[in-house]
Amino acid sequence: MAAAALPPPPTPAPEPSMNLLEPTRLDLPIFSRVRLATADDVPHIHKMIHQMAVFKKLTHLFSATESSLTTTLFNSPPFTSFTIFLLEVSPNPLTTATAAAFPPIERVIHLDLPLVDPERETFFSDKANDITVAGFVLFFPNYPTFLAKPGFYVEDLFVRDCYRRKGFGKMLLSAVAKQAVKMGYGRVEWVVLDWNVNAIKFYEEMVAKIHDEWRICRLTGRTIP
Amino acid sequence: MAAAALPPPPTPAPEPSMNLLEPTRLDLPIFSRVRLATADDVPHIHKMIHQMAVFKKLTHLFSATESSLTTTLFNSPPFTSFTIFLLEVSPNPLTTATAAAFPPIERVIHLDLPLVDPERETFFSDKANDITVAGFVLFFPNYPTFLAKPGFYVEDLFVRDCYRRKGFGKMLLSAVAKQAVKMGYGRVEWVVLDWNVNAIKFYEEMVAKIHDEWRICRLTGRTIP
Repeated sequence: MAAAALPPPPTPAPEPSMNLLEPTRLDLPIFSRVRLATADDVPHIHKMIHQMAVFKKLTHLFSATESSLTTTLFNSPPFTSFTIFLLEVSPNPLTTATAAAFPPIERVIHLDLPLVDPERETFFSDKANDITVAGFVLFFPNYPTFLAKPGFYVEDLFVRDCYRRKGFGKMLLSAVAKQAVKMGYGRVEWVVLDWNVNAIKFYEEMVAKIHDEWRICRLTGRTIP
Repeated sequence: MAAAALPPPPTPAPEPSMNLLEPTRLDLPIFSRVRLATADDVPHIHKMIHQMAVFKKLTHLFSATESSLTTTLFNSPPFTSFTIFLLEVSPNPLTTATAAAFPPIERVIHLDLPLVDPERETFFSDKANDITVAGFVLFFPNYPTFLAKPGFYVEDLFVRDCYRRKGFGKMLLSAVAKQAVKMGYGRVEWVVLDWNVNAIKFYEEMVAKIHDEWRICRLTGRTIP
């Protein structure tokens, strides 16, 4: 056989680690949803509230137990009183049953680096389907008198450490804002610690207005007259 | 008759206005009570909310109408959602029927100068018995997560101008705090404008703790994503 009849040797696939100009980008989807929490979610919610207390340097104020959360939450229809949206994530597409009170909000994000969740086992909400709890938002109606219509007050917004800076905080807060619009409510309001510059930046990017001129006052326990 | 038998001439009563060292002090009682407001009180509540907007320099935010207040308030049992305590005053003793949900709190204060209420006619809640609305407090349950039990958030505390500095603000705020204790709630919370030094002084005298490190964030109307 003539050498000319030979097919050209195949071009070797480039080693991703060797091509410094165009590294191969991975496409790792994360399937996420925001759904109404129920009493079954209390153990995960309790752990996240504790992590939030650590982050806010307020563990001296932390006295919540699973039992006290169970007693005081989920006693009223959603949105009429204290309400929790839960953020769940999975590497697999989610099968969501339509909930009457609140159809879950879903979103797929695409990562180019693998996400390592060191507490994945602890926060499984559905191990068989590889679904993990990644954050929550707790809110309830408030009443801005000048508007004379209810709004929502967001007491807590929390995304677990390894899931931050991926748009999930915005997804949770937007879910509350959308629910407010749906109910004809006038305002969504919350507070932020003045040293939490990342949170302030995040809120300002969401076009929230920061009001510098108000101060919080509290009567607690023994100081209640 | 001998002159000696005559009784001594009576000592003339001193003219109060002439005795500069010991002026005669009047004792003008004001009978007051804190009671649950009802839908019938909306016209008075609406007027006071407007006066409050003027005082807080926030009339640009004021859009409440009697109709919007009526639609959004008094839709739930007291204390489970938005709740209003009304302050009423009268120069006459009050006859109070015992209310099931909240037995009114009464108090008599004693003034040594007559109190002139230029808007008495406008704020009569019971003209036949000379009872006038003098203030209100609007509050609703909130949920301090770290405590994992509800508290009350005081949205508004207002005493009409001529009734200020007589203890009525404290009477209203204490009524909320006492209700919180009665319900096993953990905290009473509200906000104050940082330039409102009189209010801050008043709250500090009530042993409230002022938290300087929080900032209020709001999404309103068009800025809701």
